[in-house]
Amino acid sequence: MSEASQQEAATEEDVYVLTDEFVRDVRDALDAEDEAAVSALIEPLHAADLADLVELVNRSERKALVDLIAPRLDPEMLSHLDEAVRDQVVDQLEPEQIAAAVTELDTDDAVYLVEDLDPETQRAVLDAVPEEDRTHLEESLEYEEDTAGRLMQRELISVPEFWTIGQTIDFMRESDDLPDEFYEIFVVDPVHRPVGTVALNRAMRTKRPVVVSEIMNADVKTVPVEMEQDDVAHLFRQYDLLSAPVVDGSGRVIGVIMVDDVVDVIDEEAEEDILRLGGVTDDDLNAGIVRTTRSRFTWLAVNLVTAIVASMVIGLFEGTIDQMVALAVLMPIVASMGGNAGTQTMTIAVRSLATHELTAANAWRLFNKETAVGLANGGLFALLVGVAAFVWFRDPMLSGVIAAAMVINMLAAGVAGIAVPLALERMNIDPAVASSVFVTTITDVIGFFAFLGLAALVLL
Amino acid sequence: MSEASQQEAATEEDVYVLTDEFVRDVRDALDAEDEAAVSALIEPLHAADLADLVELVNRSERKALVDLIAPRLDPEMLSHLDEAVRDQVVDQLEPEQIAAAVTELDTDDAVYLVEDLDPETQRAVLDAVPEEDRTHLEESLEYEEDTAGRLMQRELISVPEFWTIGQTIDFMRESDDLPDEFYEIFVVDPVHRPVGTVALNRAMRTKRPVVVSEIMNADVKTVPVEMEQDDVAHLFRQYDLLSAPVVDGSGRVIGVIMVDDVVDVIDEEAEEDILRLGGVTDDDLNAGIVRTTRSRFTWLAVNLVTAIVASMVIGLFEGTIDQMVALAVLMPIVASMGGNAGTQTMTIAVRSLATHELTAANAWRLFNKETAVGLANGGLFALLVGVAAFVWFRDPMLSGVIAAAMVINMLAAGVAGIAVPLALERMNIDPAVASSVFVTTITDVIGFFAFLGLAALVLL
Repeated sequence: MSEASQQEAATEEDVYVLTDEFVRDVRDALDAEDEAAVSALIEPLHAADLADLVELVNRSERKALVDLIAPRLDPEMLSHLDEAVRDQVVDQLEPEQIAAAVTELDTDDAVYLVEDLDPETQRAVLDAVPEEDRTHLEESLEYEEDTAGRLMQRELISVPEFWTIGQTIDFMRESDDLPDEFYEIFVVDPVHRPVGTVALNRAMRTKRPVVVSEIMNADVKTVPVEMEQDDVAHLFRQYDLLSAPVVDGSGRVIGVIMVDDVVDVIDEEAEEDILRLGGVTDDDLNAGIVRTTRSRFTWLAVNLVTAIVASMVIGLFEGTIDQMVALAVLMPIVASMGGNAGTQTMTIAVRSLATHELTAANAWRLFNKETAVGLANGGLFALLVGVAAFVWFRDPMLSGVIAAAMVINMLAAGVAGIAVPLALERMNIDPAVASSVFVTTITDVIGFFAFLGLAALVLL
Repeated sequence: MSEASQQEAATEEDVYVLTDEFVRDVRDALDAEDEAAVSALIEPLHAADLADLVELVNRSERKALVDLIAPRLDPEMLSHLDEAVRDQVVDQLEPEQIAAAVTELDTDDAVYLVEDLDPETQRAVLDAVPEEDRTHLEESLEYEEDTAGRLMQRELISVPEFWTIGQTIDFMRESDDLPDEFYEIFVVDPVHRPVGTVALNRAMRTKRPVVVSEIMNADVKTVPVEMEQDDVAHLFRQYDLLSAPVVDGSGRVIGVIMVDDVVDVIDEEAEEDILRLGGVTDDDLNAGIVRTTRSRFTWLAVNLVTAIVASMVIGLFEGTIDQMVALAVLMPIVASMGGNAGTQTMTIAVRSLATHELTAANAWRLFNKETAVGLANGGLFALLVGVAAFVWFRDPMLSGVIAAAMVINMLAAGVAGIAVPLALERMNIDPAVASSVFVTTITDVIGFFAFLGLAALVLL
């Protein structure tokens, strides 16, 4: 092994501590019910890695593993679990254990633990946490899921504008009620509305007598508590924020959102787009067979309807196919190429809509571009497929028909690929969920209709 | 309008300052060559929003806009442009203007500006920047694209372990050679290897006489300079990092990666997966017609080959179809349902491989699960499609054949949907790029073969 690749191997192992070998060792120890060996193996793991391990093992191993770690549970681990596994693990814990974890976590992570509990357990957990935490939790639970209210933590640091840096530092040194982590000091007016932020590095570089309002950044990006989480993510990404104050209806600071929570949101939103485009509505990796079958069924049922529609179009030309069976052989090519070209355009359109790169301002320009690209690739593939069909069936008229159908369908694919997502967006339907059904139905129907219809006209 | 929706509208506008109306005003002013109006409109924009505006307008408007802002260009704007637009804008600037921007930016952003310049312009730009910046830039350009070396900035703050908090604060107050932004202080040993980090909020809360080594977090996640950017992203995400020291081969700190750069990487990686699954290799939203047509052609050509293979399978059964033309009408249903089911499984598999949630440890379990889900949905849709075919053609044998073919193909879809991405990953081929061709070829071939083959056996 060269030195470079040794270094690379070391690197991979540094990043992904759950190597296949490590997981195998843990599973062997779990299966052998060797608690000491399991404990020794998982002892050095970071909470996030332990959470990944809990997800990787199978259901019975998971149960044993959670039983083992429950007595001295790191609450952080729970907040790193994905939803399907979190539900299983939390079911296995006593309400008092959940309450202890909830009390220790920041509000946003605590809410994640209790939000999907059945009402009875949720009540039991809430009753077992100290009153102040309970009030915060209950308030947070009233905000809609996937909004700033759920993402924020209550723990934050704010100072009045007339304080000096010295006062601020002394306050931070003396107070023991500070959040675990904070990246900025919020400067607030007398009614607690944010008027500026001071980056910690700025504060540290500044001499003690300076007043905070002199060095604060007055261009505060505040987040209304009901803001959707993807808009929050956009704010952080666009303006490179580390944290942002969350304000209520009257503009008062009631919480703070941190960049690491937003990183998770960005991941989640991108993941959602990928999964929805693939016809999966839910991250079902760790879900059971029944739940997975059911969640995928809906999408397949919609596709069955569209497939039957395409078949009906073919049915219109039964007589034509009966006279020339080569049409049945070639017809899927036209539909399939249109489907793929449409998917390309649609993918770009859906993604650009999600990132707000495609707006009314450039929609028309991109529509024209996709039409042109559809025509260009349509022409190229008409030529290729025309030649291929001639080599195969030695019928110049048939070649001409498939070539013409190809141009028509690729053009339709470009137009539908951009028009469908734009239209869905305008109707407030998530383009990632619904675009591909419409686009492939259009390319199937037009593909079969153009090819078989032209054949009926020209060949028979 | 209700109060809630008014508030929502206000919120959207706060987040996305480039409203359709605003962009229209800018374009009208540009088209009217009213420079004063354009300047007044864009004056209050943040660099990132100005970059979005430059992307949104069309090519001739872009040229006019850049001409207008070039004399007092905010270098940050350039680092927010996507690659296709950056190339156009940078082409329009003089080497001295680029050099001025490069000098002002942090190394990572400066590299982004010069990395794709033609060699001659790049030389001219490098010659025009001060020597120290030039050396840093030249070193950074030698690291591979998409590695830590390209992401890092050189500007960082590090202190020896024996310093006190007081010394550290005084150093920061007196030095004027500090980075613009930093989130942590790196503690280094005498040969400049990182031994710990001190979060700024921790430092600020600590009394002056305390020695940094007492309060530092000794569990430093260091990033080797040649680490791939998706591994860097994993480290930040997994351990909620704000910044991380980058080390060279002998473990010395040579730079720092900040969370906002990693947010961009996470976005980029997710975007790449979405686009690749959709058969688009490149973010071609802002690319021209020729470049877009060419980049999409390759993928469509691969699909043409697979479509022809599927046609050949149909060709094997020309005689069968000739005797019963209903087969031609129904056959796309089986293939299409298999394709959609395969895409669902494949999407989950590709995404989970990318996020390291699918590893050797749980591959076998998920393979079994997908097989079971394929059988379950196969059974359900066999029933549905069998009934539909009977209603349509009143032929119980034909219904039986399509039902049987459906079960076979949905099972094949589940198996192929997970086996193909796993196999590609093992062969070090990106599953996001190649999986869908293989999976849909398999479901097309098996779908047509099972349906037409069974029909030939049973019906004729």
